[in-house]
Amino acid sequence: MKLATLKDGSRDGQLIVVARDLGLAHHASGIATRLQQLLDDWNFLAPQLQDLYETLNSGKARHAFAFEPAQCMAPLPRAYQWADGSAYINHVELVRRARGAEVPESFYTDPLMYQGASDDFLGPRDDAPFASADWGIDFESEIAVVTGDVACGTAPDDAIDQVRLLMLANDWSLRNLIPAELAKGFGFLQSKPATAFGPVAVTPDEIGAAWRGGRVHLSVESRWNGQRVGLCEAGPEMTFHFGQLIAHVAKTRRLAAGSIVGSGTVSNKDLSHGYSCIAEKRALEMIESGAPATPFMQHGDTIRIEVLGTDGQSVFGAIEQQVRIGGRAAQRGASAGAEALGAGSGGR
Amino acid sequence: MKLATLKDGSRDGQLIVVARDLGLAHHASGIATRLQQLLDDWNFLAPQLQDLYETLNSGKARHAFAFEPAQCMAPLPRAYQWADGSAYINHVELVRRARGAEVPESFYTDPLMYQGASDDFLGPRDDAPFASADWGIDFESEIAVVTGDVACGTAPDDAIDQVRLLMLANDWSLRNLIPAELAKGFGFLQSKPATAFGPVAVTPDEIGAAWRGGRVHLSVESRWNGQRVGLCEAGPEMTFHFGQLIAHVAKTRRLAAGSIVGSGTVSNKDLSHGYSCIAEKRALEMIESGAPATPFMQHGDTIRIEVLGTDGQSVFGAIEQQVRIGGRAAQRGASAGAEALGAGSGGR
Repeated sequence: MKLATLKDGSRDGQLIVVARDLGLAHHASGIATRLQQLLDDWNFLAPQLQDLYETLNSGKARHAFAFEPAQCMAPLPRAYQWADGSAYINHVELVRRARGAEVPESFYTDPLMYQGASDDFLGPRDDAPFASADWGIDFESEIAVVTGDVACGTAPDDAIDQVRLLMLANDWSLRNLIPAELAKGFGFLQSKPATAFGPVAVTPDEIGAAWRGGRVHLSVESRWNGQRVGLCEAGPEMTFHFGQLIAHVAKTRRLAAGSIVGSGTVSNKDLSHGYSCIAEKRALEMIESGAPATPFMQHGDTIRIEVLGTDGQSVFGAIEQQVRIGGRAAQRGASAGAEALGAGSGGR
Repeated sequence: MKLATLKDGSRDGQLIVVARDLGLAHHASGIATRLQQLLDDWNFLAPQLQDLYETLNSGKARHAFAFEPAQCMAPLPRAYQWADGSAYINHVELVRRARGAEVPESFYTDPLMYQGASDDFLGPRDDAPFASADWGIDFESEIAVVTGDVACGTAPDDAIDQVRLLMLANDWSLRNLIPAELAKGFGFLQSKPATAFGPVAVTPDEIGAAWRGGRVHLSVESRWNGQRVGLCEAGPEMTFHFGQLIAHVAKTRRLAAGSIVGSGTVSNKDLSHGYSCIAEKRALEMIESGAPATPFMQHGDTIRIEVLGTDGQSVFGAIEQQVRIGGRAAQRGASAGAEALGAGSGGR
């Protein structure tokens, strides 16, 4: 099934069920009002929502309404955990090679992950606000999963079974703040501002055989100012699958239901796939010519991220965000990139 | 006012108001059932709870019952954010000196903080479970605050006004996992398992003039296996006050109501105050004799943390936890340290 959260003025929004083709939606209020509620009591509530979902898909839901991604918050507008990985080792290799550093051998067997902030996520169409473009504003197109309760010490293959939902994420990064922050030794804090999520969270069965081995075998498209800059395969080159990422977090403690675990920037060795974050493009430029040439994002820049299923339909709907610097309102439609905002398929 | 959360089988427990002397308590259910609910709607709900608190303190609450810390969860059993600082620079200096490293000049002006996990906290009397004593089990006695909504870019002095509640924390640390994890560059994940919190969260006015300048000017007592190992002053040597810590997190993003911000291990230059974590004791031994002599915690070890107000009464109640290794149940009362569990004042 597919689920989303509508803006209603409250902190957690209103849970809705969304039809497979993202055309219609239906309030879930008779069953659950918030997505976290479903995750807290999955076995009891999920079958009831699945029934509603099937009724909606069959065109028989009596109070269906048009689904509008612009009215969505992140599926979980706030969560109890956001642990993000860097599971595509190609990304790590590129970034390290650009600064002349080796990739430690352990990085191929031990996932690189960080604890992110989860108290305030951005919706799929929310502006991304920053005080300064000097911070080095970058998108990161990612896949994320939402877990059920995970026991401490759960094995990677068992952890796959605790994946309740799949989501699309834009893990905003402030590249120019990262070197000094990581040099302090305690990880990201200021350099990873609020993450955005795609409009719809889906159960793994929604992508059929594309969900296998704890990986999403579909491509993630990233359009920066209307230009397709990446169409990266999320499956085969994911060095650590989601079960491994979850198990890594669960090595020394439990994970509570509703924990979000991310894949990190989707990245492929074959350069024809493009990139899912500007840092990677700049790393390539650094390797090729000794200096980065592509600037980071500026006021009014747009980013659109989407994943199509094997049937060609949008799985999660699209993330479509515009960068806003300082107090200035982003001028929707005024920037070159905004033209492309209406160009993609599905999700609206 | 003083607030706590009773175990009731649910994930968020049941909000109660606790009398100033921690003797009696009263359900807050007519006003709010969960602590997060209060934080989400502070201005409307806090005055109603304050009224109930005053009625309880005057002995006129009709359905008061005996307060029992052993029945408490953490005041926020799960939260949307836990960002922990290392605000006592003496602790950083000691640990660095022990390994022959300098403290960078920036550490005196730029707070060292990390994003912690907030999905699953331990209650004040819950066993602390670990798979292996080889992980280097250590307590960390800390003060923490719970914030209201904090706007992005809030100044340090303004951020002090967003402190809603004060808490006592035991930030469990796995010292032997830290070096390898921090060497990866992305901060703590496995080496910081579930944090425990004291039974009662209090509004800053509860400690009167001891809350000033964004710091708690009281002493934190740590008893390890019944021995007092630390009585550290939390106020004067806190290099960065809580407003500075909150503002540091809020530099690039908002903080949502209910965010928890920690002080890090309370630490004093004057060695007669003892220590608030074993790592500091071992650092001193390293500096003095070239090798640490004090082992980390073992199965059955106990830790008791408490803060007395200027009136001599327990402010938060005591954290009293026992280390449990593997599947073995901790033998309460069987270890040497357990004798001391009944020795402290207040909080029960």
